[in-house]
Amino acid sequence: MAVELKDLAPLLLRKERAGGDVDPAVLTNVLRDGQAANERRKHLVGLIERHPVLSDRDMMFRNHTERYEFGLKKVSHFVQFLKDQNIVDRNEQGIMYAALGEPLCIDVHNSMFIPTLENQGDDEQRAKWLPLARTYKILGAYAQTELGHGSNVQGIETVATYDKATQEFIIDSPTLTSRKWWPGGLGKTANHAIVHARLFLDGKDVGVQAFLVQIRSMEDHQPLPGIEVGDIGPKLGFNAIDNGYCAFHKIRVPRENMMMRYAKVLPDGTFVKPKSDKLVYLTMVHVRANLVENFALTMAKAATITTRFSAARIQGRTPDNKGEFQVLDYQNQQHKLFPFIAISYAAKFAARDMMARHDAAVEIVKSGNGDFAAKLATLHAVSSGLKAWLAEKVSDGVESCRRLCGGHGFTQSGNLAHLFNEIVGANTFEGTFDVLVQQHARYLLKALSGAKTLDDSEPATRFLAKFKVLCDPKLRCSGPASEAFGDLNLLVEAFEVRAARVLLALAKQMKATNNDGNACMVLMSRVSTAHAELMLLEALANGVSSFPPGREQHSVAQLCSLFGAWLVTQSIGDFRQHDYLSSSQVDLVRDQLVCLLPIVRKNCVLLTDAWDFSDFELGSTIGRYDGDIYRALMKRAADEPLNKTQVPDGYEKYLKPLIQSDL
Amino acid sequence: MAVELKDLAPLLLRKERAGGDVDPAVLTNVLRDGQAANERRKHLVGLIERHPVLSDRDMMFRNHTERYEFGLKKVSHFVQFLKDQNIVDRNEQGIMYAALGEPLCIDVHNSMFIPTLENQGDDEQRAKWLPLARTYKILGAYAQTELGHGSNVQGIETVATYDKATQEFIIDSPTLTSRKWWPGGLGKTANHAIVHARLFLDGKDVGVQAFLVQIRSMEDHQPLPGIEVGDIGPKLGFNAIDNGYCAFHKIRVPRENMMMRYAKVLPDGTFVKPKSDKLVYLTMVHVRANLVENFALTMAKAATITTRFSAARIQGRTPDNKGEFQVLDYQNQQHKLFPFIAISYAAKFAARDMMARHDAAVEIVKSGNGDFAAKLATLHAVSSGLKAWLAEKVSDGVESCRRLCGGHGFTQSGNLAHLFNEIVGANTFEGTFDVLVQQHARYLLKALSGAKTLDDSEPATRFLAKFKVLCDPKLRCSGPASEAFGDLNLLVEAFEVRAARVLLALAKQMKATNNDGNACMVLMSRVSTAHAELMLLEALANGVSSFPPGREQHSVAQLCSLFGAWLVTQSIGDFRQHDYLSSSQVDLVRDQLVCLLPIVRKNCVLLTDAWDFSDFELGSTIGRYDGDIYRALMKRAADEPLNKTQVPDGYEKYLKPLIQSDL
Repeated sequence: MAVELKDLAPLLLRKERAGGDVDPAVLTNVLRDGQAANERRKHLVGLIERHPVLSDRDMMFRNHTERYEFGLKKVSHFVQFLKDQNIVDRNEQGIMYAALGEPLCIDVHNSMFIPTLENQGDDEQRAKWLPLARTYKILGAYAQTELGHGSNVQGIETVATYDKATQEFIIDSPTLTSRKWWPGGLGKTANHAIVHARLFLDGKDVGVQAFLVQIRSMEDHQPLPGIEVGDIGPKLGFNAIDNGYCAFHKIRVPRENMMMRYAKVLPDGTFVKPKSDKLVYLTMVHVRANLVENFALTMAKAATITTRFSAARIQGRTPDNKGEFQVLDYQNQQHKLFPFIAISYAAKFAARDMMARHDAAVEIVKSGNGDFAAKLATLHAVSSGLKAWLAEKVSDGVESCRRLCGGHGFTQSGNLAHLFNEIVGANTFEGTFDVLVQQHARYLLKALSGAKTLDDSEPATRFLAKFKVLCDPKLRCSGPASEAFGDLNLLVEAFEVRAARVLLALAKQMKATNNDGNACMVLMSRVSTAHAELMLLEALANGVSSFPPGREQHSVAQLCSLFGAWLVTQSIGDFRQHDYLSSSQVDLVRDQLVCLLPIVRKNCVLLTDAWDFSDFELGSTIGRYDGDIYRALMKRAADEPLNKTQVPDGYEKYLKPLIQSDL
Repeated sequence: MAVELKDLAPLLLRKERAGGDVDPAVLTNVLRDGQAANERRKHLVGLIERHPVLSDRDMMFRNHTERYEFGLKKVSHFVQFLKDQNIVDRNEQGIMYAALGEPLCIDVHNSMFIPTLENQGDDEQRAKWLPLARTYKILGAYAQTELGHGSNVQGIETVATYDKATQEFIIDSPTLTSRKWWPGGLGKTANHAIVHARLFLDGKDVGVQAFLVQIRSMEDHQPLPGIEVGDIGPKLGFNAIDNGYCAFHKIRVPRENMMMRYAKVLPDGTFVKPKSDKLVYLTMVHVRANLVENFALTMAKAATITTRFSAARIQGRTPDNKGEFQVLDYQNQQHKLFPFIAISYAAKFAARDMMARHDAAVEIVKSGNGDFAAKLATLHAVSSGLKAWLAEKVSDGVESCRRLCGGHGFTQSGNLAHLFNEIVGANTFEGTFDVLVQQHARYLLKALSGAKTLDDSEPATRFLAKFKVLCDPKLRCSGPASEAFGDLNLLVEAFEVRAARVLLALAKQMKATNNDGNACMVLMSRVSTAHAELMLLEALANGVSSFPPGREQHSVAQLCSLFGAWLVTQSIGDFRQHDYLSSSQVDLVRDQLVCLLPIVRKNCVLLTDAWDFSDFELGSTIGRYDGDIYRALMKRAADEPLNKTQVPDGYEKYLKPLIQSDL
């Protein structure tokens, strides 16, 4: 018996797969946007996997300095490799970049610096700088955040003063807290930066503007005179990136270096105000949709690793004492893990929906027919809530997955800690939870009050059309038995009721506090959460129909039922408001959730296999497709630098005297 | 205005302190066990702070290998320093060790190896090995966990076979998964280990026993023949420790190396079964009490850092547009942060209570009068639930604190990420959540069924005495208005009702499933959580009276009210079962919680100052006592090795070709 154990893990995972009744390839086609796209994606990831430098996954052995320096090597190879392989499509470049497993110092150059030039530069500026930026002749940072100011951009203290005589801006960091702090690539890599500064014209503050500032010499990379620049030190994640600081001591840039597409400063110092730019929503929605897609993929990776580990790992005698439980057998493991599989699916469909609507808006803009702005504004507002919810739940979910893998989840080679470190920053960047839920809740309030005309075809606010019915305190949920709470229509209605009632409470509280947003902030968070969960449940419920009828579709529908029931159990107080759900109906929901666990378990490995991540993409000893996790752990431990010698370096100096001397 | 900003942070923190009306020194006396103990503690921490090597806090710049190697240096200095300073008391050594800021490779030698010799060695074994171990002549690991088995100790696969002819045990690792995996200090440091192996005598399995095994040469530290040993690689935390693996290839140890205090093997191979050892609970309760104390201190550190940062940091215009909000002004910030201050206080009182009861039991053992075993068994069982709850909530709380500090929380120099990494492992070691909540819930079931005689003086199970009343579905909470939900007696009763009802539901479900524990596991978790929260709320409510009457006592009572109200809002479903709380009473609880936020805010900085951590202990740029956080961030960034040169090492090789060549 004991001897066989060594091969039990792969066997158990195979057995688990064999026990399912869905074809993961059918699921993959939907999750990965069709077979052709998926094959191409795998080809591109394979190119990275087979590259001698770009396939490196040894970041866990390196400190921040070493990761940055190895990252430079990767950047150099990556740029060359894209050229050699003639990969010019941005999406394809993005797939290969993601396959590197960690963001590098050119991240912000590509994701923020170039797009800023594209979107905020005028024709002349774009003609001048874009070719240089796109070929990495100039390397740019995006310097907005300061030591003292992050999300409140209007509070930034860097100053730009226009000198009519020389037609130059004088950029200055007048205070301790005004130095730029955090921008990725600013510390050691970038030789230029888009710098946000408060512009003064003839002593008059005309608001925050963006300037292209050269910060290092193009000859020898030394900081230019008047510029203090460096790295802010190690962080929780992104340690291959040189997040930096920078202070400006009255340095001068030509007038032409202010981004002039919207606001302008004429040579004589006249300020031309920008026209309102509704197109800005397009960019923001695009960024959000990509972020939501990233949440889906990160959650999917963590769920895949943890599901496989839970199937392959045994721990704890069965009651008959004849064998050991697979960790996946435990009710608690299923109860904690399966909602994360559901979140990955729900986020995927939400991302797809956002991207489709973004693309539709682009078409409208191109054709010039129709009003895209209102729709995109709604989409942007509600996506704030989605982003806030997913950033928190996916980060927490990855960390929960790590804990569900016990001790082996604690090793870096399992890769769950790394996934967490790289995603958890999303709680802070692109808007913190508190800022986003306010935007979201305030938008819903406006929509409710009729300040915005409701559009019946807008799914996100459809529940407002029946607001009165939903808020009627006499309304009761109709679910008569536990199975009823697996019904998607019943669940969606329950979430509509909940979202409507919390919103009504907020509207009342805002009135009672004279619109004191801060006094209503806890309630705003609840409103945003309630609506985000409604949207995600609907996204997954609608997503079910994208699978061909059959077992696969049925299996995703079951996952969706589990998602809905689980969400209810997480916020029972809301659903019990005015007894919409009765005390005994709550028990039924809990029963239904527990009933669904073994049903979802039947296909849980296949539902995660369906994401079709390669072992290289997962980068996890304990999440291997073949379940050979123990050999993988040993193999990876052999790579630890401490194991290069039998006796550690400090032995002679520190250990030997301790052991052999008299203390 | 802008220029003044540079000094605003310290000013705001001072202002916040000045706005409070409690004397933190009065609180400190209670939290830190009296003035004398606190002064001594500060003196001991000061010794570390002033030591040139032991004060090192540069771990964030190091990878695992470097941290281990610098750790060896620290170990060598630490041992010498204790001797030089003549610090012999274990508690005092513990205080100084904790002040090092990270556990080192001798951690397990002191916390597990020596205690095992003390508790499981017979007189001869102790006389032989303890003097060597205590003077670090032998360095030990505690090798229980294997690659394939963690919490299920009965499943371990390492084998010991007794060879009568030579009176030796043959220790062997027969399978891949049988190699020891995880033990701290085993990888590169230890030359001996307590090895747990399944013992076979004449082919008969007599269960898992502990053996002292030499693994490295005392001459040159090389692994002994037949031993494969090494480091398992980088982990989420504890990277100064060489957690190791070890495989035994039929190595031989003398019969005398089995721990013989309880079970014995005679020279002829006869097995002498151990007598039941109730004293084992003493050790376990002691370990748990220390762990709970550690949860309290870690939560307190994170809450201190975050409260100070929230007071010193401004972000976001006030509605009148005249200034900026302190982050602490935001309702959401208060709502998320203040419960963590309450948890630190509650855990402190729970730990003190456990330690007092442990000490009382030691007295009973010494005097030989009275039955300590039943009480300690209860204490051990309920402490499982406390440990499970606190491990999860404190880890999550530290991470929440980190997110509450925005971008600056993401830098390592804020120290919140490090605190998280060092505490989150407690979710796994000393019993995972799932194992512990089952122990806890099963104990309560037994107590309920009368299998255990209830002791009225046992506070943890006092609620069972009025079980029927509490479970009466007609019972309603009496709270008429929101202030009622600040009343500690009312809150405690509500938590008793909740704990009783969930336990009743579990008892029914166990019956319905024929005692299938796994089928009831989700409910067991709820039972354990409900009872743990009752115990913690009571611990804090009782702790209030340890403060002298006056503003300080009042202030802690307010914190306790907030804790209770907050806990209710986290599990409304339980409290609404059978409408014990009505829908409108839940609204009252929420109102009360929001009302308490500004009240607790008034003293929140002082409530955390009261822990009296030095800046050295907090090790945080953003949690400084004086609020000078921005200068601290800059100063720490200057220590980043990348900043030693203006131009990074990889420039000539990787960046320059990229910038200057034609791509």
